Amino acid sequence: GSGALEKPGGCRQSEIPLIRNLSEQGYDSYSLSFGLSHKTVAGAVHHGMKEIEVWIQTIAPHGRSPIHRHACEEVVIILKGYGTFYLSDGHDPDVPGKPKEIPIYPNSTFSVPVNSVHQVWNTHEAEDLQFMVAISRPPMELFVYRNWSTPHNEAILEEIKWNKLKSSSELKQCKEPELKDEL
Amino acid sequence: GSGALEKPGGCRQSEIPLIRNLSEQGYDSYSLSFGLSHKTVAGAVHHGMKEIEVWIQTIAPHGRSPIHRHACEEVVIILKGYGTFYLSDGHDPDVPGKPKEIPIYPNSTFSVPVNSVHQVWNTHEAEDLQFMVAISRPPMELFVYRNWSTPHNEAILEEIKWNKLKSSSELKQCKEPELKDEL
Ligand SMILES: [Zn+2]
Ligand SMILES: [Zn+2]
Repeated sequence: GSGALEKPGGCRQSEIPLIRNLSEQGYDSYSLSFGLSHKTVAGAVHHGMKEIEVWIQTIAPHGRSPIHRHACEEVVIILKGYGTFYLSDGHDPDVPGKPKEIPIYPNSTFSVPVNSVHQVWNTHEAEDLQFMVAISRPPMELFVYRNWSTPHNEAILEEIKWNKLKSSSELKQCKEPELKDEL
Repeated sequence: GSGALEKPGGCRQSEIPLIRNLSEQGYDSYSLSFGLSHKTVAGAVHHGMKEIEVWIQTIAPHGRSPIHRHACEEVVIILKGYGTFYLSDGHDPDVPGKPKEIPIYPNSTFSVPVNSVHQVWNTHEAEDLQFMVAISRPPMELFVYRNWSTPHNEAILEEIKWNKLKSSSELKQCKEPELKDEL
């Protein structure tokens, strides 16, 4: 049928509409860090994407993303709000070190170099910070740092909660078909 | 320095600012088809991206993209305006055939299945249709169809004009260094 996508392993996903209304799709809130809400626009787990994933994220006033790194590429476009993009310069091979501080504002864009440690803060007193994220090679493997002095080898691989399938029936659909023993 | 990126072949790109203001970046207009303007948010040729590319495109009233296919994944978010997304159902192995017609509107999103033939039209009398595009595996190889009955093997590989480097000095920077003969 329309919009059905093959998943690796021959799993056929349940019908995905060809067009989706982002205004009707709610945000999910996660405890990854304070004040971060997430919406998957098109993703590996729920929409069968294999090479790119697109998100919309909102950070509440005083909220932030975790300090993190990932091996995939990331492009961010700020849709609304004001904040700071922190980026490790990578000069110290063992720890992220004191990051650069780059102001972000509506219609600004930045790319995150592969494996660079980074974080986004909402610095506005009252307004949400909202942005679009595009990443490569989904699903993302997210390594989280306690602070900018955490050694790279102590960063923790965190499960990304929005990549968990919502129902066990979805999981069942993606199991290998059981082979019937013909003997 | 800040923002410099290694390109394949050891080519060092000229300084790319860590943050870029999309409001200050003009659109380029192209003759690909009628009324399409393009802005590369982050791309392979100009920003050193290797795995994803993000664009903003605007189609004037009555304008359209070409009928085309590409082997990379594509995600589109409509930022403003109204139009129609045409998508071949792929039932005929030789030609795209009569496409599905899917209305698009602000805050709607769709993904283009790999190698599917598709086109976007602005159907509004007066308003621009503006959208964000994310693609995988840049730079894109674009195959253009004259119409929906053009056989797949007659689709034409078109050079994407916004992927041309702007100056020969940029090209020079990306040449292999000449090896000095030590003998
Ligand atoms: Zn990130
Ligand atoms: Zn396309």
